[in-house]
Amino acid sequence: MVDFILGIDGGGTGCRAALANSEGQVLGRGHSGAANIRTDLTGACAHIIEAANQALNAAGLDPELISHIPAVLGLAGTNIGPYRQQLQTLLPFRESRIESDAKIALEGAIGSHDGAIAIFGTGSVYMLRRNGVVSSTGGWGFQLGDQASGARLGRDLLEQTLLAYDDIIHASPLTRDIMAAFNNDPALLVEFTIDARPGDYGRFAPKLFDHAAQEDAVAQFIIGKAVADIEAVLNTLNLHENEPLCLLGGLAELYAPLLGPRYQALLQKPKGDALSGALHIAKRSFSHQPASERGENT
Amino acid sequence: MVDFILGIDGGGTGCRAALANSEGQVLGRGHSGAANIRTDLTGACAHIIEAANQALNAAGLDPELISHIPAVLGLAGTNIGPYRQQLQTLLPFRESRIESDAKIALEGAIGSHDGAIAIFGTGSVYMLRRNGVVSSTGGWGFQLGDQASGARLGRDLLEQTLLAYDDIIHASPLTRDIMAAFNNDPALLVEFTIDARPGDYGRFAPKLFDHAAQEDAVAQFIIGKAVADIEAVLNTLNLHENEPLCLLGGLAELYAPLLGPRYQALLQKPKGDALSGALHIAKRSFSHQPASERGENT
Repeated sequence: MVDFILGIDGGGTGCRAALANSEGQVLGRGHSGAANIRTDLTGACAHIIEAANQALNAAGLDPELISHIPAVLGLAGTNIGPYRQQLQTLLPFRESRIESDAKIALEGAIGSHDGAIAIFGTGSVYMLRRNGVVSSTGGWGFQLGDQASGARLGRDLLEQTLLAYDDIIHASPLTRDIMAAFNNDPALLVEFTIDARPGDYGRFAPKLFDHAAQEDAVAQFIIGKAVADIEAVLNTLNLHENEPLCLLGGLAELYAPLLGPRYQALLQKPKGDALSGALHIAKRSFSHQPASERGENT
Repeated sequence: MVDFILGIDGGGTGCRAALANSEGQVLGRGHSGAANIRTDLTGACAHIIEAANQALNAAGLDPELISHIPAVLGLAGTNIGPYRQQLQTLLPFRESRIESDAKIALEGAIGSHDGAIAIFGTGSVYMLRRNGVVSSTGGWGFQLGDQASGARLGRDLLEQTLLAYDDIIHASPLTRDIMAAFNNDPALLVEFTIDARPGDYGRFAPKLFDHAAQEDAVAQFIIGKAVADIEAVLNTLNLHENEPLCLLGGLAELYAPLLGPRYQALLQKPKGDALSGALHIAKRSFSHQPASERGENT
């Protein structure tokens, strides 16, 4: 019999853990630093263990028990390279099931049914579950993908701002704001790019939605292109009427009202967050149900 | 009387020097490593001195003479930050006039008359001389500018390739080639971006022109957008009939036949290279002509 399960949600800014009993009832929680296994495997592993230990501690359990508890981990950076296999060998749990952060977000948002999520944060990615089979689209990062993400919106805005500075396009209130924020010196924008991480570009994104609502032409151009990029992906997913669509991430609420009526009709509020999704998968994977009920292909 | 002048052309891949007499006749040449003063000021300075010493040596001059010879330097990275002032204090020449690499390229290509150049290499930048006054457009680097440059073309190609992989756009022979070069694994494209420099993206550019000529739809889309970006800048420059336009850089010959008839009519072969431009400016700046003939504002 499994007494306890762990869910872990690890991303680029922090790692959360939840300890639950075999019914899925949360007994303790923990929180620590970043856990992107691609950018820092050792640090991610340390933060995962730290958050898990906190959760055990909050539940009043002996930390030694950690090696007897199975865990489902949803982590950033699992889709690239050998990091997932390397992490497996480093984790102290009885058994570790490592999923992408997007996979546990899907489970948290729509449960184990068919449907889709689209995550718009610093990056962007789409997950679809159809007939129980999960597939992902996008999520290829700031340089080559992540269309409509905060980072891409920010980069587009700074590019258009420099085009306006050079009189290639018309300046707008927003591009003038941005130039003023950089002391009206284009060289400072270029300096910004030298060390800027995607998250640094992403900080300009909310301003874009504000100005688009005020009919700023440059903001409307950039947001309009992003919405078209989103709908191009959604069109490819070819969602059915009984497949709900949840938008997640920091820009979800900003994009939701801008989608066309076809997708408005499919929009649903997410049932729960990614950490609850990790616990759902853990409960399904590690409880002593007959294998046929486990839905292992989800 | 000035006996000798030095011209220096320093860029991201190498530094060239030419020693000339006061008539501009080249007596010796030198060549050394990269001289981008923004990315490596100390290394750039060492390479500049090395190339200059080689040029003196090739001309049979005592290296001690270096402190008696004035130089015009055209260097990458002069438009950003305090590096130009810092370099001034480190150089051994009698007098150092530091210009952008684009400025000496303009002088080399069209001499001291009015006209424009557009440089399409790893980056892109436009220089215009009108009524003797020089201005530049673009050149803001890979992340936010350099539209139609090799690096931006390469990045666009890899982005479209991933969109084709995800079935958001139709794949083409070129996107299939690129996927095959990355072992049909999108994760390897993402890995490529982690350490890729603009020049690494730029290596994909010639392939794009080849495939566009073979009517590859994705290549034609990317090149078509780049040509539109170029013409948007040229339209802004509002070139007159008597203002020649030279295309420079590794992609110049590839873009030239794609421009519209208005710009085809203005195209001219460059008179000389950037190093000859540095020598021209040196001759004008440091020869003992009456000030009225020096054209100091060019």
